[in-house]
Parts: sequence; C-alpha cells; structure tokens
Amino acid sequence: MTVRIDMHAHFFPPITREEAAQLDAQHAPWLALDSDAETGMIMTGDRAFRPITRPLWDPLRRVEEMDRLGIDIQLMCATPVLFGYTYPAATVVDWARRLNDRALELCSAAPGRLKALAQVPLQDIELACAEASRAKASGHHGVQIGNHVGQKDLDDEGLVQFLIHCANENIPVLVHPWDMMNDGRMKKWMLPWLVAMPAETQLSILSLILSGAFERIPRSLKLCFAHGGGSFAFLLGRVDNAWRERDIVRENCPHLPSSYVDRFCVDSAVFDDGALRLLVDVMGPERVMLGSDYPFPLGEQQVGRLIADHIGLDESAKRRLLSENAQAFFDLPEIHAVAA
Amino acid sequence: MTVRIDMHAHFFPPITREEAAQLDAQHAPWLALDSDAETGMIMTGDRAFRPITRPLWDPLRRVEEMDRLGIDIQLMCATPVLFGYTYPAATVVDWARRLNDRALELCSAAPGRLKALAQVPLQDIELACAEASRAKASGHHGVQIGNHVGQKDLDDEGLVQFLIHCANENIPVLVHPWDMMNDGRMKKWMLPWLVAMPAETQLSILSLILSGAFERIPRSLKLCFAHGGGSFAFLLGRVDNAWRERDIVRENCPHLPSSYVDRFCVDSAVFDDGALRLLVDVMGPERVMLGSDYPFPLGEQQVGRLIADHIGLDESAKRRLLSENAQAFFDLPEIHAVAA
Repeated sequence: MTVRIDMHAHFFPPITREEAAQLDAQHAPWLALDSDAETGMIMTGDRAFRPITRPLWDPLRRVEEMDRLGIDIQLMCATPVLFGYTYPAATVVDWARRLNDRALELCSAAPGRLKALAQVPLQDIELACAEASRAKASGHHGVQIGNHVGQKDLDDEGLVQFLIHCANENIPVLVHPWDMMNDGRMKKWMLPWLVAMPAETQLSILSLILSGAFERIPRSLKLCFAHGGGSFAFLLGRVDNAWRERDIVRENCPHLPSSYVDRFCVDSAVFDDGALRLLVDVMGPERVMLGSDYPFPLGEQQVGRLIADHIGLDESAKRRLLSENAQAFFDLPEIHAVAA
Repeated sequence: MTVRIDMHAHFFPPITREEAAQLDAQHAPWLALDSDAETGMIMTGDRAFRPITRPLWDPLRRVEEMDRLGIDIQLMCATPVLFGYTYPAATVVDWARRLNDRALELCSAAPGRLKALAQVPLQDIELACAEASRAKASGHHGVQIGNHVGQKDLDDEGLVQFLIHCANENIPVLVHPWDMMNDGRMKKWMLPWLVAMPAETQLSILSLILSGAFERIPRSLKLCFAHGGGSFAFLLGRVDNAWRERDIVRENCPHLPSSYVDRFCVDSAVFDDGALRLLVDVMGPERVMLGSDYPFPLGEQQVGRLIADHIGLDESAKRRLLSENAQAFFDLPEIHAVAA
C-alpha cells in the first residue's frame, strides 16, 4: 500500500470562551461543544461561525479516522479564523505561541502520525519571523499563513521579507486563503467559499508573479498554495496572454507568468478528475501534493481517493502526489505505511 | 474551410465627448482618437480607461481583419463600459437605443459578416425587456448584459424575469462580467481582469444554479457566459462537493450543481489547450462556441486557432465550436465560408 500523507488538514484546540477573551471578548474564536462532544460550533464571540465535528479538536478520534481513511500522516494547521491578524501584534504573538504549543500537544497523542504547521503574527514581520523560527525549533514542520493581511497581498515588501526568511531557514510555507474579497454580495450558499476563496489564491499567486517578487525570493523557498491553487491552473493561459499583449501586465515581471510554476506547489483539493488532470499537467507531478482540507465539509471526504483512483495518472505520479512530494517538501523521515 | 463565427467581439462607436455629455458630462465613456485615427483611448470623462485600435469603431477595417484571421461572421456587442447601469433608467433607455441603432449602422457596412447584440437598461426590468424586444425586431441577434447590476446578481427576481422574457421571445443572452468585485487591492497589472473578472462569472453562474432560478427559467433560454465561463469549469467539483456536504449550499437548489451545465453555453476564450479540453469535457462540445473578446489585447489574438489546432478535438467537435453551435444559438442562416 502506498504511503499517504495529507498535507492540508485543520485543527482547532478546545479553546474556551474565557481563553478567547484574553485576545478579544467580543470577536475572538472559541469552541462551543455539543453535549455529546461529537459535534460543536466554532464561535466568534456570540456568533455561530461554522459547525464542526470531533476530529477537529480530538487527536485520538482524528487518528481513528485517519486509520479508516488510510492516511498515514497528517500535517495539521490552524483553522484560519484563528490567525488573529487584525489584532495588535504584541497581543497576537502570545496567542500564536500558545496555539502553536497546543498544536504540538495535539500531535504528541500520535507523534508518528500527526505533524503540525505553525501560525505567526503576520501583521508584524519581525515577530512573525521570530515565531516561525521558534516554532520550527520546537517541532513544527513549517508555517501556514493567510494569503493576505488586510490590504497587503503577497507582493507586500514585508510579506516578501517573511518568505525570504522562511527560505533562508528552510521553513516550508502553506498559503491558505481567508478574509475573502466581498463587496456585500455573496450572502448565501457559501458563495465566499465557492467564488472568492479560489479568487484570493489566484490573487496571491499573481501578486507574487507579476510583482517580480520571485526574482528576489530564493529558489529554495518551499511554498504551497491550498485548494489546488484556486483558479490559477485554469486561468494561466489568460494571464500569459495578458502578459504578452499589455505592457502594464509585464511592468514588473520579466518572464512569462507560466515560467514561474516551478516556484511553488499546490495541494490536490480540486474534487474532480478533469481538474486534477489539468492541475498535474500545468504544475507537473512533482508539484501537486495530497491535501484534503480535513475535517471540514468542504474538504475531500474520501481523502486520497481522487488521486488513487485517477485513470490518467501512472503509479509513479500517484506515489509522488500521495506521499513523496510532501515527504521532501516537509523533510519527513522515511515512512512506512501504517494505516489500514 | 470550416466556417468560423466569432460570437464574442466588441465595438465602441466613435462617440464624441459632447455626445457622452448627454448621459453624464463627468464620467460617461467616449472615444479620443489619435491623430492618425489608427489608435485611440476609451475615456470616461477626463480619465483614460483603455487603449484601443481602429477595428473597434471602424467596420471596414474590422472586416479586413476578419479576412486576415479567417473569420466569416462576428457577433459584436458593446464594450461593457457603455452599459450605463448606474444612471437613471429613463436617461439610459435613450442611450441604449441610440447605441443599438448605431451598432446596426456599423453592421450595415458588411451585413453578411457583422451581426450585433443589443444592450438594455437593465436597472429597469420593464424598460430592459421592451428594448430587448425592440432591438431584436430591428435586426439584433440577441442581447449582451452585464453579469450584475450593483448588488443584484443573476438570482435577483427582476433579472430572472428579464431572462424569462428573453426565453419567451427567443432572444439569446450573452452575460459579460463587468464592475468587478474589488476591496481596494488589485491596483496593478490588470489584476481585476485576471482575478475578479473570472470570479464575477463564477458568481453569476452559481447565483443562477444555487438560487434554484433554473427551475423557473424555461429550458428554451439561450444563455452564454463569456471567457469560458470564468473559473466555473475548474471549480465545479468543489461546488458539487459543497452541495453534497452542506445543507446551506443545497438550501434553494434541488439538484447537483453540475446537473445544470446543460442550461447554458460558454465561449472558448481560455487561451490554453488544457483549459479548453477541460471546458469541452465539462460543458460538452455542443455548449462551447468560438468567442475571442476581439479586438482587445486580452482577447484571443489568432481568433479560432486554439480550437482549429487542438489535438484533442475531432473534426466534428471543431465544426461545432467554430460555427455550428453559434449558428443554432443565434438563429443564423445557412453560412458558406467567405473569409480567406
């Protein structure tokens, strides 16, 4: 059985309302568990944010589920609502440290199976770099960052400096869309998750490419975008054409946008055979990694099946997507399949 | 030689600043032509909006270009900045009528080669329906509408009524993204065109599907979305998964989102072999039509080549995409290739 590493999965430790109040009594996120502790709700202050299930906060239940799904290792990162980028950095640095330490506690329930990515106070680049390094030294396998900080996209000079720091310290970076663009429409049917979230990732990737930031970031940076890179792979032809035909698109970007696809990876959470085929064609089989968005409803439910059952991928490509790419990306030790 | 019909091309009649002032002296769009009248600028009031070239306003030059490109027929529609949806409807109804009449004048320079789609004052549904019917009776082959009117997306009751009117009167509808969502980022590199424009189309298609509007709109509606449907084809798996797993996504939509792909068409402006292959796989070869966004730089430059040279499409599929689908969609008479 091929080893399976799921590199995009979320946790949310059982933070009480009282703990959340240390960050912000009005809006900070906490968990309201139902009486049977099988389900619950992520709350932001008094507001119900998202219904959840037990594996999100219970590592033993999580490993049982991984056994059922045939997943050997999960890389867990915070639910993005925990980022806290809108608060004063001095407050959030403690919040981030505590969450990162709790993530390692969750992992300690099954150290061979659960690995963590840290969060950082990205509104302050110096503090963010320091926490990324501290977290890595304490056992984290990389960091997860939101795709933007308010009006700052990934071409922002400070965010580029953060990425350069991660390159220099060999800290892998997963970029997750959050705080989705919304002009007041998209009120129903989870439209922000189905329209704006992939657009946020598209914006992040293009911000790096078209700003010329990749010319300054070391090639050694390990960078991955969630959800198959949003709408990037499908729209890349449109972007190349725009770069060829309009000077203002080329202004800061010396090479054809598609020439930068070897500078980053994407996860495989695209839910469709044809989309995965296009994704692998565009990115190359060495740059797509199994990532499910587990344990959320909008994640892949049968984690790994889309890759494992794909008729257009050969066994070598499947091994890369299911484990080898993530093993190299996160510097994981030699792995032997343990799950079912 | 296979007949080629380009169903997504734009015009902008040579509107002077004085004419534009009848709509709005401050912001209405007009054409500033350079001294050689080969190039120019779309202006909105004093502001340069977009550089342009002569075929946009000169039908004889356009037909010369069509000969060079091997395009037999073009369906022309207004440049979206001409929509005027933000002005009082009573003012815009005259503006729309005049533009629609001028579009037919442009077509009269080469009646067998140039056909037009009308614009309507979509901020007033009654007036919009009346102008759509008037325009069709006067020789237009359909209407082009913007994908939203302020905060109203295509699930808005009035906009659904407009679509029902078009279905009942056999008026084909091309939906074009415009007025792109933007929270203040995306200031450079044409990012609104590369990120938000495909997201707008995704939002429009999902607004129709997830609202259940397709349950009320007659199946006879001829509906087409520009730019290959934005990011829809690549993200459909994500949408189906969300519909299966979250009650709030299913709330108003009784069937799996992908089951509605037979309710609309898309154009072929995706600029990439793999993207076109996915698009044809998702939509079916009977629901993709050659559309280039001519004569803009972000349009397909060698109009029709992506389809004609595609190694994954057989001759029958190519004929459908290059002409047969558009011929049926717009009720065009039997066509014999005339272009080179």
